[in-house]
Amino acid sequence: MIHSNKNNSMFVPEVVVQRIPIYIRILQEELKYGNTVISSKNLGKRLQMSSAQIRKDLSYFGKFGKQGQGYPIEFLVEKLKIVVGLGQKWNACIVGTGRLGQAIINYPGFSPEGFKIVAAFDSNNIKLDSSADSIPILGMESLSKTIKQKSINVAIVSVPALEAQKVIDLLVFEGIKGILNYAPISPKVPNGVVIRNIDPILSLQSMTYYLKES
Amino acid sequence: MIHSNKNNSMFVPEVVVQRIPIYIRILQEELKYGNTVISSKNLGKRLQMSSAQIRKDLSYFGKFGKQGQGYPIEFLVEKLKIVVGLGQKWNACIVGTGRLGQAIINYPGFSPEGFKIVAAFDSNNIKLDSSADSIPILGMESLSKTIKQKSINVAIVSVPALEAQKVIDLLVFEGIKGILNYAPISPKVPNGVVIRNIDPILSLQSMTYYLKES
Repeated sequence: MIHSNKNNSMFVPEVVVQRIPIYIRILQEELKYGNTVISSKNLGKRLQMSSAQIRKDLSYFGKFGKQGQGYPIEFLVEKLKIVVGLGQKWNACIVGTGRLGQAIINYPGFSPEGFKIVAAFDSNNIKLDSSADSIPILGMESLSKTIKQKSINVAIVSVPALEAQKVIDLLVFEGIKGILNYAPISPKVPNGVVIRNIDPILSLQSMTYYLKES
Repeated sequence: MIHSNKNNSMFVPEVVVQRIPIYIRILQEELKYGNTVISSKNLGKRLQMSSAQIRKDLSYFGKFGKQGQGYPIEFLVEKLKIVVGLGQKWNACIVGTGRLGQAIINYPGFSPEGFKIVAAFDSNNIKLDSSADSIPILGMESLSKTIKQKSINVAIVSVPALEAQKVIDLLVFEGIKGILNYAPISPKVPNGVVIRNIDPILSLQSMTYYLKES
């Protein structure tokens, strides 16, 4: 939440932006159940939020549904997808092809959501095993050229903590504006670059706050 | 943020709870730089927040430092660690030992932070390769017994999406109160169980919101 910089003109609070993908996922699940409309009350139950907050969140992006009739799910999903940029395709590269990097490369969930990993980089030129998709693993010296050639706009960083800031600086220098960082550090990025940190330790620590007292 | 349930008496907003581990990490970095005190202004710069918000956040947990003198870093770190339950050790198990599960088992970051993975479970009894630590991989039929024997209080779920809710229900049934979920679903848990979802897709989607307009 705190690691990104806002560069859009209409200000939507970042906590709201971070909830949109969750709205999309839950609405898609409702569609699978065969539902076509959902009330702000039921949507609130799914997200453990008040219906007033749900209505406020969604009002940032337009007027959906009529008073007392609930939201039309399919229409809302389509609209929210465009809001978060899922109307376009994103080419991603990954830096760091250790065990975690390989797990990420083989994760089947990115592609259906519009994110395609088109190149992998590693300072050690570690070989992927045969179960990996046919993504070329290149040395770091190919980074600059490949980012341009393959129109890469998002980077995933899965290098050790000590190398992460250096790698992130390099990616920023090469024009990458969106970084998903798996290294357990709090990286610094300049304004205009958005970074998200995937950090299980932070999640665990904010969880044990609740467990210690029970 | 939205997937946990509060069971503590003094109410601290969950967004604040989720920031505490980030405070701890940043303060520890400041200690490494040799700093002993930090102002709310500088702490705010590191977290991209206002100094007023920093002061408000920390005031939930006590009175730290004197007006105009900044926060004593070491004292604050120790206090915040206790707040999030890092004063005690947590025994964790992991369910699902595919590629991601193996990356998690081999991740060196859990142990120094007080989380020890003491058992792994898999319905397929997949063997870990030799580089893994000596964590036994057990069949699901051993779950109940092992959770009790090894005093496991936290579980990490890294099974495929389709199996995740079933596995989470089972863990809850066995008395687990804290779950770190890597499967890309929005799992349901009863009150009193805290769940955190590690979900790169949600992070990517809330990132592209900012990128699409730039």
